[in-house]
Amino acid sequence: MPVIHNLWAVIPAGGAGTRLWPLSRAASPKFLHDLTGSGRSLLQETVDRLTPLVEDRFLVVTGTPHRAAVIAQLSALDPTAVLAEPSPRDSMAAIGLGAALLERRDPDAVMGSFAADHVVTDPDAFGEVVRIAAEVARDNWLVTLGIEPTHPSTAFGYIRMGEPLAEHPGAHAVPGFVEKPSVDVAEQYLAAGTYRWNAGMFVVRPAVLLDLLAQWHPDFADQLRQIAADPSLLEDVWPTLPKIALDHAVAEPAAEAGRVAVVPAAMGWDDIGDFDSLSHLLEADLGHLTVLGEGSCVRGVDSSGLVVAGTGRVISVVGLDDIVVVDTPDALLVTSRERAQDVKQVVSRLRADGRADLT
Amino acid sequence: MPVIHNLWAVIPAGGAGTRLWPLSRAASPKFLHDLTGSGRSLLQETVDRLTPLVEDRFLVVTGTPHRAAVIAQLSALDPTAVLAEPSPRDSMAAIGLGAALLERRDPDAVMGSFAADHVVTDPDAFGEVVRIAAEVARDNWLVTLGIEPTHPSTAFGYIRMGEPLAEHPGAHAVPGFVEKPSVDVAEQYLAAGTYRWNAGMFVVRPAVLLDLLAQWHPDFADQLRQIAADPSLLEDVWPTLPKIALDHAVAEPAAEAGRVAVVPAAMGWDDIGDFDSLSHLLEADLGHLTVLGEGSCVRGVDSSGLVVAGTGRVISVVGLDDIVVVDTPDALLVTSRERAQDVKQVVSRLRADGRADLT
Repeated sequence: MPVIHNLWAVIPAGGAGTRLWPLSRAASPKFLHDLTGSGRSLLQETVDRLTPLVEDRFLVVTGTPHRAAVIAQLSALDPTAVLAEPSPRDSMAAIGLGAALLERRDPDAVMGSFAADHVVTDPDAFGEVVRIAAEVARDNWLVTLGIEPTHPSTAFGYIRMGEPLAEHPGAHAVPGFVEKPSVDVAEQYLAAGTYRWNAGMFVVRPAVLLDLLAQWHPDFADQLRQIAADPSLLEDVWPTLPKIALDHAVAEPAAEAGRVAVVPAAMGWDDIGDFDSLSHLLEADLGHLTVLGEGSCVRGVDSSGLVVAGTGRVISVVGLDDIVVVDTPDALLVTSRERAQDVKQVVSRLRADGRADLT
Repeated sequence: MPVIHNLWAVIPAGGAGTRLWPLSRAASPKFLHDLTGSGRSLLQETVDRLTPLVEDRFLVVTGTPHRAAVIAQLSALDPTAVLAEPSPRDSMAAIGLGAALLERRDPDAVMGSFAADHVVTDPDAFGEVVRIAAEVARDNWLVTLGIEPTHPSTAFGYIRMGEPLAEHPGAHAVPGFVEKPSVDVAEQYLAAGTYRWNAGMFVVRPAVLLDLLAQWHPDFADQLRQIAADPSLLEDVWPTLPKIALDHAVAEPAAEAGRVAVVPAAMGWDDIGDFDSLSHLLEADLGHLTVLGEGSCVRGVDSSGLVVAGTGRVISVVGLDDIVVVDTPDALLVTSRERAQDVKQVVSRLRADGRADLT
C-alpha cells in the first residue's frame, strides 16, 4: 500500500465506553484493551493500520489521565505526538486542536481523523478508501468515509449519498446527515442503498476544517488557532471551548452548504459499541461460546454467546444461548446479547451508589 | 416440644452434591454450607432441629476427610459422637453402623436417620411427625416419613401409602416403594393423593433394622454387629461391606414383607437437589434476583433468579430471567433454573479434563 503524501492521522483517543463495562472503565478505556484477541490494543491496531499510509505522521489526542498509558502502548511514536486534553471537551475540540497544530506545521497537510477504538477487518480496503478521500480533500472538500450498512442498525447516524462528484467519480456529494433512525427507517435506508453509516471518520485539509468551523463558530476556531500559536495558552483556553461533536459543529452545516463529500467504504468496520457487536466481531463458531481471553478456563455446555475470561478462574456456562459473561477481578457482568445496550444502566447505578471506583 | 424418650438421631453426612457445584465440592460438601442464609450450615440446622427431640443423643457418620470440619461445626457435641467412615459405602453401611452401635449401647433405643443436607421449614411439624414415627417404631415397624408432594417431582422416589395401622391411626402401611417416575406418572401420583415423597428418613429400633437386614443380607448384618462389638475391626471390615442404599437393602423387601409403615408429613421439606430448588427455597420476591451471600454486591437490572455472591466482587445481571450465577473464588457458574440439573455435566467434564481439584 503506497504512502499517502502529506497525510496526517489525527487520533482522538477518548470515551470510557460504558456499554463495555466492566471490561472498559473510565480509568482504563476501551481503546487501551485488546478486544480482538490479536495481542494488540484497539489503539495499537489503529496505529498499525495507518502506519503504511502516514508513516510517522500521527497526532494522538487523549485525556491527561491516559497520556502515559498511550505513550507506553505506542512506543514507536515520538511522545510529543501524544497530546493531552486538560479535560474532555468532545470531538470538535480534540480534532480541531489537531487541525490547528497541523495548519501551522504543514500548509500542504491533509488530515484524517480516525477514532482509536474502532475495528477494521479489511485494512487494504481501508487504505484505498483513505487514498481516494485524501485526493478529494485536497480539492477543499470535507470528506467523510461512508460505511456500507450490513444491517438496519439503529446505533449509528447515517450519511445521505448524493450525486458522484464530477472530478472524483469515487466520491459523492453529501446533501445531509441523519441522526440514529428507528428500525423501520433504518430498514428503508438499507433498502434504498443510498445511505451510509456515519463512522465519524473525516479527511480534510486542516485549514478547510478550521475555516468551516469559523463560519458557524468563529470564536471556537480563533481559540484553537491561538492555542496552536502559543501552546502555553492550552490550560487556560481549553476549559472555555464549547463541548460539541464535530458532526454538529461543522459536518452538518457544511453538508447543507454543499461542502461535504463521502467516499463509500466496505472494509469490515465496527465501533464495538457493546458486547453484542463484540460477540458478532469475534464469533468464529456459530452456536458455540466465543471466548475473549483464556479459552482454556471456559467450559460451555449447550451454550452460545460471549465469555470474556479475565481472571484465570474456571467459567462454566450451562444451557444458555446468546449469553454474555464478563469476568474481571473486581466486577462480574452477566447479560444477554439482546440486552447488551443496557449495561450502561449498571454503570449509572454504580455511580449513583457511590461506587464510581468500579466504573 | 417434648423430648422423645430414648430416641437417637443418626445423621449420615456425606455426598458431594455435584449439582450444587461450584458451591458444593468434594472437599467442602453441601452439608457444611449455609445455603439458607441463616448463618448456620445445613448440618448445624439439622442438629438444631433435632436437639429438642433427642437432647445429646446423636451419632453423625461422615467421611474421614470431613470429620474435623463436622466436629468444628458441632462444637456442642461430644467428638466421639462423630464417626468417620474409612471410605464411602452408601447409606446402608453408614446407617447400619449407627444401628449396630446403638443396639449394644441401649436396648430400648429408637433411632431416626436424617440426612445432614436437607431443609425443613416447619420444625414443629417435623417434631410431631418424628414423635408419632418413634411410637410406631417401638412396635417393631420400620417407619419412614412420607413427604406430602407439592408438585409432580421426578427427582424423588415415592412411597405408596396403604391402610392406616389399627394401633397407630397416624401411620399407614406401606405396600411398596416406587422409583423416580416420569412426569406423567408423577402427576398421577399427585392426583391420587396416596403417594408420598421418599426423603430417605427412617425411624426404627436398631435391632429391628439389623434383623431385617439379616433376612436379605445376613453377612452384612453380621459384619456391622462385629464392628460394633470390636471397633478395631472397622478399618479391615469396612471396605468389604456391600455398597447399597438402605432403601434397596432393607426398605423395599421389608415393605413387600409387610414390615414398613409411613407417617405422612407436611413440614416444608427440601433436599436442595440443585440451584433451582435452592432458588425456590430462598425466593423472597418473585420477579427479582434472590441473593445468597452479600446482597450489597449485587446489581440486578430487569432480572430474576439466584445469585450466590461468594467473592465480594460486584455482580451485575442485566435483562435475564430465571438466571443462576454462582461466584466463588476459583470458579464461576452461569446457568438457568431450568438447566440446573445439568450442572453435574460441568463437574464430569472438569474431572475428565484433569481439573478434579476444582470439583
